[in-house]
Amino acid sequence: MMRKKDFERVFSKERITKLIDEFGAIGADPNGGVTRLAFSSYDIKAREKIIRIMENELGLKVRIDPWGNIIGRREGKLNNAASLMTGSHLDSVRNGGKFDGPAGVLGAVEAIRALNELKIKTFHPLELVVFTAEEPNDFGISTVGSRGMVGKLSKEELLNIKNNEGFSILDAIKKIGGDPDRFHEGIRKPGEIKAFIEIHIEQMPYLEKEKKDIGIVEGITGIHRAKVIIHGVAKHAGTTPMNERQDALVAAAHLIKTLNKLASTEKNTVATVGQISVKPNSINIIPSETSLDLEVRSYHKSAIKKILEDFYNEMSLIGKVYGVKTSIKDTYHTEPTTFSPYIREKIKQACDILGFSYLNLVSMAGHDANHIATIADTGMIFIPSHKGLSHCPKEWTDPIYLVKGAKVLAQSLLILDQEN
Amino acid sequence: MMRKKDFERVFSKERITKLIDEFGAIGADPNGGVTRLAFSSYDIKAREKIIRIMENELGLKVRIDPWGNIIGRREGKLNNAASLMTGSHLDSVRNGGKFDGPAGVLGAVEAIRALNELKIKTFHPLELVVFTAEEPNDFGISTVGSRGMVGKLSKEELLNIKNNEGFSILDAIKKIGGDPDRFHEGIRKPGEIKAFIEIHIEQMPYLEKEKKDIGIVEGITGIHRAKVIIHGVAKHAGTTPMNERQDALVAAAHLIKTLNKLASTEKNTVATVGQISVKPNSINIIPSETSLDLEVRSYHKSAIKKILEDFYNEMSLIGKVYGVKTSIKDTYHTEPTTFSPYIREKIKQACDILGFSYLNLVSMAGHDANHIATIADTGMIFIPSHKGLSHCPKEWTDPIYLVKGAKVLAQSLLILDQEN
Repeated sequence: MMRKKDFERVFSKERITKLIDEFGAIGADPNGGVTRLAFSSYDIKAREKIIRIMENELGLKVRIDPWGNIIGRREGKLNNAASLMTGSHLDSVRNGGKFDGPAGVLGAVEAIRALNELKIKTFHPLELVVFTAEEPNDFGISTVGSRGMVGKLSKEELLNIKNNEGFSILDAIKKIGGDPDRFHEGIRKPGEIKAFIEIHIEQMPYLEKEKKDIGIVEGITGIHRAKVIIHGVAKHAGTTPMNERQDALVAAAHLIKTLNKLASTEKNTVATVGQISVKPNSINIIPSETSLDLEVRSYHKSAIKKILEDFYNEMSLIGKVYGVKTSIKDTYHTEPTTFSPYIREKIKQACDILGFSYLNLVSMAGHDANHIATIADTGMIFIPSHKGLSHCPKEWTDPIYLVKGAKVLAQSLLILDQEN
Repeated sequence: MMRKKDFERVFSKERITKLIDEFGAIGADPNGGVTRLAFSSYDIKAREKIIRIMENELGLKVRIDPWGNIIGRREGKLNNAASLMTGSHLDSVRNGGKFDGPAGVLGAVEAIRALNELKIKTFHPLELVVFTAEEPNDFGISTVGSRGMVGKLSKEELLNIKNNEGFSILDAIKKIGGDPDRFHEGIRKPGEIKAFIEIHIEQMPYLEKEKKDIGIVEGITGIHRAKVIIHGVAKHAGTTPMNERQDALVAAAHLIKTLNKLASTEKNTVATVGQISVKPNSINIIPSETSLDLEVRSYHKSAIKKILEDFYNEMSLIGKVYGVKTSIKDTYHTEPTTFSPYIREKIKQACDILGFSYLNLVSMAGHDANHIATIADTGMIFIPSHKGLSHCPKEWTDPIYLVKGAKVLAQSLLILDQEN
């Protein structure tokens, strides 16, 4: 077991800060922020850079799996032992920040570099993964690499997915070195991975508020998305009396407020209408149709169910009140994930050894770890996000915590390495 | 004074129906409705057709004034007498109906035809006007011809107005025979027009509901338009707790409902949010900006004032509740118009002579008559609109009322002609 003092010597805040900045420069937006969409030229540039680092600086044996995931392997002392895996992603949303994703990849780089410097040979092989296309992107599909790796995506499902330029996602995966014809060979079997741990910025304000170093993630929110269409009648906005209207936007306003209120009373639960479109969208015509894209997230399955039920109920009630017809279509659903208590316990032990304070948290964002959790004991290490800001140029994490996260990762891997 | 029996002989439901259908076919949309935007090729075709009818069938002396208004003159027995003017417009909104506008022009055609057949020579000259560009159009400006005629528009104001193709409205006015260099010559002076009466479909459901033949219009609504911008903060829709949000769309929903409620308690008053836009409009990002285009219409100046005051008040209150900043910019304002009681009385007398039932009404739509009212005694004759539908393909008026409207117009002009 490592001692705290050894870690002080081999982890470097300056080194990890420099890396974060170097990757943040790839696809940097002129007015701040980063746009490094999956499969874009910037994404490819970042991938090439991380491969060089993994090979040249960390001495890892790097391969691209059929899903385009970059996997760097550090052999262990035991033959055929299950691997200890870590990693995250390097792609970003449009005009996002430089920490979401890179903090996990570069934290893992720092951890492995530290083990190298301390000349520690683990029993189990270590794998550092950079997952393909974690974020929403031009192809409208996310967590591609991690879902592929656990057998939850197939070539058939991807066949007709194209970006706005008509470029197919299968061709995009080929472009980054993947091979759709061998997708099945990229699926990892249960037992092959002993544990997976991902460092990620918290994207919530709790660690900063509570002045804690580390978040030990209990699990990940479920997500339900749906499209609501409200049908009213387009009439002259001047000559139609208020009590003769079937105004699709006023009815939509009622539903937007309703959803907001429903989510506000539940714990670990949020709901948002992020997209709206109105027809005919003319100043002197009463709106005839409004569509709303809504999202409910909760760590509690029952809360999602209750909110949706209450919302459906309100939808049917407002039909009469506003004279509109409403319909709803589910567009996406994932159940909440609870991470392995075993891994959570090891991360807690690592924090205790290192003297870091921690908080048990639930993640309200989806991650690659969601999917890896279906085939391996999985955990996540959260580090504080300033004001909880994320997916925006102001996303920021103090480098002190980048290093603390990397230390907890290294320590957790070492503890896990001691166990069969 | 004419007798009812004479009118029975010379007005024809079939003739006016045929004309309505013929004009409705110019710019007819494949799935119903009419798109005959001002200055479009269809508008020009309709103008050419009405000029032929005015010259060849009615024997009017037709000229195009500098604003592009078509004016057909029927001389009177007195030299230099002020004219009795009637008319409306032939342009339509996008995918509108075939009655809004043409009912007034073709009703006037029918009335003058009847006077011709009855060989009535009036003391005062009669003028039949087809106004230029009454409806909202590609140039974003309406009631061009009537505003021009009363000196409320200038060449300077139109200088930079172009449609999406970059075509200037001044060139468009030239294309239909107008002459921007002589705009000032097109301004009619007070005293030149003894009276103006416009037939128009009601666009509201009251005449149909009350089973009345004719609406005598007391006046026209005032209109206030404004753009409201709500500034929130774009944050991750999953990781931002409900109580930490500055959601520009939830705040907008509150304002949409507020405006609706405020208008619902006032008489002769409506309010509408017809346009909305949201940034970034992404399903997993909390909206950072929402803009609303709102409109308040009332015949009562005090009601517009009260609604706006209460709305501004609510805007400032929600800033605190939703953590957003709001701003509002007025984009358009017209005061309510009250028509000449003198003309209303003549229309009422005409209804009584003809045995038609009537209702005193307020118009919630703007008309060319609004503007002519600033230089001449003005009135409007409304005829029933089925279900109040207007500016849509289902706009419909029973031809019986087209004829009744034309009769009331002819009778009113004859009554007015007897007075100095």
